[in-house]
Parts: sequence; C-alpha cells; structure tokens
Amino acid sequence: MGVRLVGFRDAEGAAAVGTLTEDGAGVVPLAGLEEFWSDPRRFLTEPGAGRPAVPVAEVELVPPVLPGARVICIGLNYLKHVAEGSYAAGGVPPFPTLFARWPTSLSVGGAEIPVPVDEDGLDWEGEVVAWVGTTLAAATPDEALAAVVGYSTFNDVTARRAQKLTSQWILGKNADGSGPLGPLVPAAEVGDLRDGLEIRTRVNGEVVQEGSTDEMVYTVGETLALVSRTFTLNPGDLLATGTPSGVGYSRTPPWLMQPGDVVEVEVERLGVLRNTVVAAAGSLVSDRDPRRR
Amino acid sequence: MGVRLVGFRDAEGAAAVGTLTEDGAGVVPLAGLEEFWSDPRRFLTEPGAGRPAVPVAEVELVPPVLPGARVICIGLNYLKHVAEGSYAAGGVPPFPTLFARWPTSLSVGGAEIPVPVDEDGLDWEGEVVAWVGTTLAAATPDEALAAVVGYSTFNDVTARRAQKLTSQWILGKNADGSGPLGPLVPAAEVGDLRDGLEIRTRVNGEVVQEGSTDEMVYTVGETLALVSRTFTLNPGDLLATGTPSGVGYSRTPPWLMQPGDVVEVEVERLGVLRNTVVAAAGSLVSDRDPRRR
Repeated sequence: MGVRLVGFRDAEGAAAVGTLTEDGAGVVPLAGLEEFWSDPRRFLTEPGAGRPAVPVAEVELVPPVLPGARVICIGLNYLKHVAEGSYAAGGVPPFPTLFARWPTSLSVGGAEIPVPVDEDGLDWEGEVVAWVGTTLAAATPDEALAAVVGYSTFNDVTARRAQKLTSQWILGKNADGSGPLGPLVPAAEVGDLRDGLEIRTRVNGEVVQEGSTDEMVYTVGETLALVSRTFTLNPGDLLATGTPSGVGYSRTPPWLMQPGDVVEVEVERLGVLRNTVVAAAGSLVSDRDPRRR
Repeated sequence: MGVRLVGFRDAEGAAAVGTLTEDGAGVVPLAGLEEFWSDPRRFLTEPGAGRPAVPVAEVELVPPVLPGARVICIGLNYLKHVAEGSYAAGGVPPFPTLFARWPTSLSVGGAEIPVPVDEDGLDWEGEVVAWVGTTLAAATPDEALAAVVGYSTFNDVTARRAQKLTSQWILGKNADGSGPLGPLVPAAEVGDLRDGLEIRTRVNGEVVQEGSTDEMVYTVGETLALVSRTFTLNPGDLLATGTPSGVGYSRTPPWLMQPGDVVEVEVERLGVLRNTVVAAAGSLVSDRDPRRR
C-alpha cells in the first residue's frame, strides 16, 4: 500500500511518528514528533522499511500534528458545494475563504466523534489535507506546492448550529474530536491534486459526496502562496482543501449524522478514513444554556 | 505593582513562567510552561516573592502560552465599535462573533510588529485577554468566570486587507508577530471586568481608543460558557474580549500604522503594552503576487 505515516504515543507518552507496516497492524517508529517535523523529507525518504514494528493495538494512535501547527481550512472551494449552501448567493469567492482549526480538535481514523450538547447532529465534509514541509514566506504558488511533503484524508466534521451563530464559522469547526485525519501519504506517491483524485464520503455505506480534486477553485499552491504573504508557514502546518458538494445541512430535508452513524471518507491513493458518531457525555440541552439570557 | 507573570526561555531554551520583580528588571522563575498550566492557581498563590531573580535583560521574554492553546477572540463586542465598522448594518450580533488566532501569532511587549508585504499598514485593537485556568465543559457563565485565573493587555493588531478578502477574518488576524500580549495579572488583583476597567490605545502618544470593559456586550463568563458547549476549554486557553471603538480603518480618511509608529494599549490594573511597527523583510509587492492570477 506504499508509505503511510501515523502519529502515536510512545511508552513514555511522548508523541512520535512512525510508518505503518504493509498489513497495517504494526508501526515502525521513525522519530519524535518535533524531530520529524524538523526535517520531514529525511524521514519520508527513509521510512524505516524492514525495521522492527510495534503492534498498532499496543499504542495510542494520534494525529502526527505539532501542538503549535496551524490547520488552515478552505471553505467553498468546490463549485457545486458553493452552489448548494448558505453562501450560494455570493457566488465563487474572489479569494480562498480561509478559516481556522486548532490542532486540539483533530483525531484519527477509528476515533469516536461526539455530537456537542446543543447540536441536532453533525455534518460531514470529506476533504484532502496537504502537509507543509518547509518554511514558506511570500512564496510563489510553485514554491508553495513544492514545499508540500504529503497528503491525508480528512473529515472536516461540522457543528452547523454553532458554525452559523454569527458571521464567523470557527466555533462550529472546532468541536471536540471533530477533525479525524488519515495517515500522511508522501507527496511523491500522490502526485498532483490537479490531476483529479476521486473523493467520496459515505454515511452508513451510502455515498453522500462524490467529487474530484480537480474541481477545486483554488489549488494548494495558490492558497499556500497567498497565506504566506500574511504569515510565515512552518513545517507541520496543514491546509484542508475544502469539501465537494453533498453535505447534509443543505439537503431537503437536512441530514445530520446521529450517534451510531459510521462515516467514511475515501480518497484515491490516500485510503479510507472511518469514524463513528457518538453522543456527548451529558448531551441533554439543559436550563444552563447560556443562550437563554 | 502587584504580581505580573511573564513567559521566558530558560538557559536550555525551554519555555518557562516567572514573576516580574517590583521594578520590572528581574524575573523570578516559577515553573516550566507545561508545569505552570497543569496547576496555575498553585503558582499564582505562591508567586515566588523574595526568591532570586534573573535579569530580564538576560532572558528572551515570550508569551506564557502553551503551543496548543486556543486564542478565542470576540469581534464586535463593544457597541460603539459595532457601529463604526463594516458590520454596522448587521447590528449587534445575537451571539459573540468568535474568530481564531493560532498562538504562533502572539508576541510580547517591546516586540516589533512587521507590516505584511501586501498591507498598506496595520490597524490597532486594544483589548483585554482572559486566561482560562481549569477545564470547562458545558459550564455555566458563573462556573466559566470562576475558572479565569488572570487577565492581560492585548493588541489584536489586524491586517485589514487580508481580513476582508473573504467573509472569514482569520488570515488578517494571524499575521506574524501581530498579537502582542502583556503580563498575566492574577484575577484576584483585577476584580470583575463588568465593574469597568478603562482601556486606552495610543499611537505615537495620541489617544485613538478610549473605552471601558463594562461596555462589553458579551461578558467573559457568558462567552466561555457558550464556547464550552461546543468544545472543552483547557487550562491555558485564552479569550480576547474585543476592542472598543476608535480603530483606524473606519476613520475618514482611514489611518493605519506605518513602520516606526509606536502603539500602546493601557488597561487599568493591567498596565501598558508598548510595541513598534516595522517593515516586513522584502515588503515590496512583487510580481510574485498570487493575486495576479
């Protein structure tokens, strides 16, 4: 299946990066998390083939994301998704619509996704994430694309009620455990997203999103270049490239995931990311609700 | 002047937290950054009085912010600021308008603030930041307020062009070095922001913003309680509470800070935060500009 990098906690609880074995049952330790991101290309070209593996069942998998990384997300980046949602009247935005996730909201395949207490359910957004491998300041699109060391599947699971409380989306984009992220696949194995990788999201086996990465309005290189003119990108920063059409909230009737639902994001060459939605602890809307002011 | 906590890099380069001496020239080391935030109240009640200090001139001051902390910011939280800006037509938002900063954008008093390459200058936004000291999930406003362990001065310096490229603000709110943060003052010394602390911003000595924290639409407790219903707040997370009226972009003519300008945010009981605006390295708009697509 090629090289697949994952994060895990080592015996001392420190975050580390390793390579999945061919059968996916083991992880070959490569480096501590900080060490990995200090020179990711070195570890990607020597991904530990043939070295002893630790059984995946014996470690805790975590996203291989630095705590201080920035998860930059593009909204409205597929034409048919622009047309289906609340922002359709605005047309295609003249620049990539960027919003922020904090890394705390990220998780991994297999993790449960809790429905926050005030939400009627959660919406899916299957995506591809690009990983920045080198520092980028005022870069050109070509320089920015060349700095990408890998790609992953991502589900930008959204708390729609919280997202739409005001003009700014970030509350509904940072719910606990709402950002499952698949293994990092080296850019050399993926090629160029503009060639069109098929992306599909399934809920309980039913295909709900189906698109291709060549439908993106703003490419990875263009978007990272634009960002790098306002802030310097660092190794380990992530760009979530937006979701195709087919999200749940804009359907008639709306469809939001409920506890027990299984959601899968499958991207060509990147694999399948599978997660289960669960109820949050204490998820009855109570008279504590600060909205009742 | 009471207890003032700052972050600094120790001899090994690790981030740590200490107390400023009465004259501000020394820092008494208290704990490593992670250790401090594992139990901030312990260190706030024993802030190291009388113990040996390291000269401030010999250490690098850094914000005492965990790399994985969330800097949650409220836009449009003072009535007169709502009325002066681009969002006036929308009136007072029915919920706090939350946007995100990544901690990477933060700096300290005395640090230089570079103007990003595509900006005509930078706007000021004097604010108060509240520091969360304990875990908060689905908290009441009273519980949330009780979890606040301290407050700081903050300048939410804004790259207006980038902020307004699309509907979402975060690009223009995360420019390099754009978030200077003053020392942490224990909540017990500050009291309740609803009692009204005077807040003033000066540019080159001229008062440009003048307000009081009792003008806030959404209080610290209400906002943190709302957030905690979507994601769990952790010790070390920050809430920037919004800026009073008087920002530069909405003036006639607009006024943006230029390299060489000195900006000060002064808040009653919290002190003065002073920074200088500088040119970014290589800040000529070049033909690399990805906007020229």
